[in-house]
Amino acid sequence: MTRARVHIIGTGLLGTSLGLALTKAGHPVSLADASPTAVRLAADMGAGDACDPTDPDIVVVATPPDVAARTIVDALGRWPRATVTDVASVKTAVLAEARELAGDPVLERYIGCHPMAGRERSGAIAARDDLFLARPWVVCSDEDTPAERLAAVVALAEAAGATVVHLDPEFHDSAVARVSHAPQVLASLMAGRLRDMPADGVALAGQGLRDVTRIAASDPGLWTQILAGNAAEVRTVLSAVRDDLDALIDALDLRSGALATIAGLIAAGNEGHDRIPGKHGQAPEKYSSVTVFVDDTPGTLARLFADIGDLGVNVEDIRIDHATGIKLGSVDISVIPSAQVTLTEGLAARDWWVPEAAIEHEGRE
Amino acid sequence: MTRARVHIIGTGLLGTSLGLALTKAGHPVSLADASPTAVRLAADMGAGDACDPTDPDIVVVATPPDVAARTIVDALGRWPRATVTDVASVKTAVLAEARELAGDPVLERYIGCHPMAGRERSGAIAARDDLFLARPWVVCSDEDTPAERLAAVVALAEAAGATVVHLDPEFHDSAVARVSHAPQVLASLMAGRLRDMPADGVALAGQGLRDVTRIAASDPGLWTQILAGNAAEVRTVLSAVRDDLDALIDALDLRSGALATIAGLIAAGNEGHDRIPGKHGQAPEKYSSVTVFVDDTPGTLARLFADIGDLGVNVEDIRIDHATGIKLGSVDISVIPSAQVTLTEGLAARDWWVPEAAIEHEGRE
Repeated sequence: MTRARVHIIGTGLLGTSLGLALTKAGHPVSLADASPTAVRLAADMGAGDACDPTDPDIVVVATPPDVAARTIVDALGRWPRATVTDVASVKTAVLAEARELAGDPVLERYIGCHPMAGRERSGAIAARDDLFLARPWVVCSDEDTPAERLAAVVALAEAAGATVVHLDPEFHDSAVARVSHAPQVLASLMAGRLRDMPADGVALAGQGLRDVTRIAASDPGLWTQILAGNAAEVRTVLSAVRDDLDALIDALDLRSGALATIAGLIAAGNEGHDRIPGKHGQAPEKYSSVTVFVDDTPGTLARLFADIGDLGVNVEDIRIDHATGIKLGSVDISVIPSAQVTLTEGLAARDWWVPEAAIEHEGRE
Repeated sequence: MTRARVHIIGTGLLGTSLGLALTKAGHPVSLADASPTAVRLAADMGAGDACDPTDPDIVVVATPPDVAARTIVDALGRWPRATVTDVASVKTAVLAEARELAGDPVLERYIGCHPMAGRERSGAIAARDDLFLARPWVVCSDEDTPAERLAAVVALAEAAGATVVHLDPEFHDSAVARVSHAPQVLASLMAGRLRDMPADGVALAGQGLRDVTRIAASDPGLWTQILAGNAAEVRTVLSAVRDDLDALIDALDLRSGALATIAGLIAAGNEGHDRIPGKHGQAPEKYSSVTVFVDDTPGTLARLFADIGDLGVNVEDIRIDHATGIKLGSVDISVIPSAQVTLTEGLAARDWWVPEAAIEHEGRE
């Protein structure tokens, strides 16, 4: 089988990572970018050749989202046999703008995509050929999409190692407004409240605040484009959040009935939290947690994980929580519930400081 | 030195954990709880003796926050020589209610505290003697607080292994509204939006959503008391968040100037995020991250951390991100910046799959 010739326009994090992955998979890849330096860097990294192709099979638009539609339409006009796709994180706005610029017949060759991959670093220099590995890659097609073009786009996503998910553009935009865009806004607004706090107050921060605000470190320029590109859906979700927030603020006057409002909103959060899928894309699973206290020196974690490996236990997640002021940390190890006793007793037997082992033993006496 | 005789009222997670810690440190500890079963369990676990003391040196009120003030006043009346303290997570409301019930003279013997410790599990059964180890323990005193009583409370916190932080009650309540209570509300409200989503949509959730909503799993009953107990301060912070949210929702009409509003709010979040202290209570520090791809089987992490230990590198934080659908994960290892090259090259040399090592090598050619 001849590998599709792929032309990638935009050599930032996503475009360059895709070029690396497709080159590795044997595809001939050409690269373009508005910045000559960026395209040169991507080519030097091995993402493809910096050149203008005459007849590519697939063109991938990996520009910033605000120029995606125009670039898609340009590509459709310039390469009249090519299938054109993109990686923008919003889909209906791109499609609507492209339709306005080009009309439906040409758009038969366009299939919008959204690979759900990224990192906190940006640009070609942060690219890696594994970026898409086993990540969801949303493909937006409809009944008019020609089957062979759809197959070519799916094959491209799979060549990059991604897991293809077929969704329509409206469903996609509604879903990402809830699982990605609104969480970004709330994390940013929460973090913004810390700006004018005295340092003594911020020093009381714990793991909860750290988790809620981690993604508040994201790039304002990119996120402005993303939020603007999905404005209607983001507005819908944020307006619902605002209604809940209004209800909660009102309830803080503690009038009769107010406590039920507060408890109801926190309980609703419990329910929503429990819907988030577990690891490996499986149904939500409750892991059991085993805590070990460790001194915070090189080699300690190595010994700990060596012992865990000897016990034949698979670690699902780890959380390291360092102590304030001294060099001591706790490691919370998440495992499937059936492995908890093995791990707790096994580590305690190997002289690890496992508080629950001691307590549970005493409790059973 | 004779160890202070400590009486703990309320044998939930905090009271029982404190009993375990103080007993271990050699203090005579007595225990009481409204529930005979709860106090019996705590005593069985070794947290102290379930009995009514005649003349305790210190009484620790570790009840739910909504009965803390009344319990404090009862204890002050019943044991006229004792210093009384509590562990409620709000301080001004408890103090105001106690003052109303008892008057200032009696309250000279009361010193409010808030140990910043907890876990997602609750009750005596989740207690551990290390719960307070190296955690901030806020002590609220003023110029009228007798020095020897203050010293006794500080000694108690230190006996539990905590790090004492002196704050006034208003400052404390204002700070925890920002670093703890408002983040809880926003996490809960965000998670609540996931309740009515189709499963196909929630399946697109990534690590960002997981982090933002992790604490949305918290107990509604306890959090209703906490939020109600600090209602004024929580209202202030949440009202400011609501103003920002209103501004952002309005800006999503994308009128002229709207993008600057959006970008400004995300950038403000960057600034706030950067104020959160780093590990060990030190100034914020930027760690460098090295990503390793691993197959998700027992023993793999053991080998990885053994190799990291051999390289003499200290791990500051770990994030494990599992792939969707297949048994493959990536491990992001945070280290001090000066250790990044050692770790990247050392792991690559030991045949670990470190994407950046390959890319950076190619990039330098």
